[in-house]
Amino acid sequence: MAADRLNKRVLLTGASGFVGRHCARHLESRGWEVHAQRVDLLNPSETSALIRELRPDALLHLAWYSKHRLYWTADENFDWLNASLHLLREFTAAGGKRFVGAGTCAEYDWSVAGHCDEATTPSNPATVYGACKYALHLAANALCRKYGVSYAWGRLFFLYGPDEHPERFVPSVVGSLLRSETARCTSGEQIRDFLHVDDAASALAALLGSDIQGVVNIASGTAVPLRDIARTIARVIGREDLLALGALPMNANDPPVLTAATGRLRNEVGWTPSRTLRQGLEQTIDWWRAA
Amino acid sequence: MAADRLNKRVLLTGASGFVGRHCARHLESRGWEVHAQRVDLLNPSETSALIRELRPDALLHLAWYSKHRLYWTADENFDWLNASLHLLREFTAAGGKRFVGAGTCAEYDWSVAGHCDEATTPSNPATVYGACKYALHLAANALCRKYGVSYAWGRLFFLYGPDEHPERFVPSVVGSLLRSETARCTSGEQIRDFLHVDDAASALAALLGSDIQGVVNIASGTAVPLRDIARTIARVIGREDLLALGALPMNANDPPVLTAATGRLRNEVGWTPSRTLRQGLEQTIDWWRAA
Repeated sequence: MAADRLNKRVLLTGASGFVGRHCARHLESRGWEVHAQRVDLLNPSETSALIRELRPDALLHLAWYSKHRLYWTADENFDWLNASLHLLREFTAAGGKRFVGAGTCAEYDWSVAGHCDEATTPSNPATVYGACKYALHLAANALCRKYGVSYAWGRLFFLYGPDEHPERFVPSVVGSLLRSETARCTSGEQIRDFLHVDDAASALAALLGSDIQGVVNIASGTAVPLRDIARTIARVIGREDLLALGALPMNANDPPVLTAATGRLRNEVGWTPSRTLRQGLEQTIDWWRAA
Repeated sequence: MAADRLNKRVLLTGASGFVGRHCARHLESRGWEVHAQRVDLLNPSETSALIRELRPDALLHLAWYSKHRLYWTADENFDWLNASLHLLREFTAAGGKRFVGAGTCAEYDWSVAGHCDEATTPSNPATVYGACKYALHLAANALCRKYGVSYAWGRLFFLYGPDEHPERFVPSVVGSLLRSETARCTSGEQIRDFLHVDDAASALAALLGSDIQGVVNIASGTAVPLRDIARTIARVIGREDLLALGALPMNANDPPVLTAATGRLRNEVGWTPSRTLRQGLEQTIDWWRAA
């Protein structure tokens, strides 16, 4: 019993974040003893002390700077690159066995990407956020290869669900319609892969429990135009009359298609989403109604 | 005069290294006021104090961990990634205008690379050294883009010349033949681009003085089989009888071809080597004779 628990001790960073708050439950249901990080990871000595005391077998590293909009260009991305590498070095030095980090679709080259495949789509991040995440992946992968630590990097695509920042796409449409206000949108032709945040957490827990190596896209595998998402929300709320598609101009930097190949996630990790997009949106609308 | 000098103050890191020791002269001949870094860059507060005091206009950053053989896998690569980013953040914060960093051909994907082109050959480093250099390039490029700092990354290929570690290819052949010992080599079919270290320094000074952005290969543009280099050395020394090509097995990790596209360096930076390979080898042999 004790030996068994010893081999399933996972440190979860970013445990109170948008994705992280859903992870502990999925990890526990897979038999992990979950330790949510509570120290300041930007303080190297606190990180070192935590790892030396806990000596986790696995590390699911989600913590990062995530202030709405600002995270794309913030200097804090460089701090988190550095802090993450320090954390990982301490983890490997303390006998850690399995690492999973949270990457992003912003690591791919959006000027050529459309349907993003882990093996063939080039990485060439256009943002500070994407660059620092990709830089961490490169260095972390090299570190884990050197020390024989099992390594995977889950590239998250577009997420929605409870606790999302109200200015982002899904909450802004839901919020407007629930307040009986016009929901002003672009034409919504952009094709995207949207995944419920609780399913993203479930996928990361599955990835941690596997021994799959390298980059794995974390996405639903079902890509739709944004206008379909807006229309589904409007139908569920019963206010299709307030949906103003085309009221906002398209952002020139928005690629027409940004979707995820999910073959690795489905076939190698063996994970599929537990909800349809419609079910996830219904749950999210209920959450906002109650909020 | 004072204002003119003010705009040409360059901080040179790694100024006592294999490449760096040749840089100051080339920079000075181009009108730069050269400040060789003498603080410990792995100490963040020393770095910060240096930059705040000097307030350099330009930064030519060559300092890195470079112990023979060990540098490919050493953990110090992670320290230098972090220290380099800290240095660059202080430089941009203090009003720095132009940054040039030293990259490496080990950033390219050697499993697919042959003739390496900056724009089309994929990067996918197989070593800790290559991964940390490439990670630094990604983060540094993003940082400079954000703050409007002019940015170039000179990817060095194969260098030779004075002060090279005696176990490396050129010095080991030269040393054996000068001691009248057999020079045991592989068959030497590997095609490589070798550049004299003083020409590499000259190219980096030219790159710093330009406003070319992004990755630029630093190489001669003349690729030859290693056996031709060995034969030239043997002819110059007059001991072709001691050259044992094929006496050592090929290293399975050695790509058959690893050469550099030099179109950017020649046409955009406007730089070409000052010596032929034969002239560079003669100078290097003379240096070893006198050493």
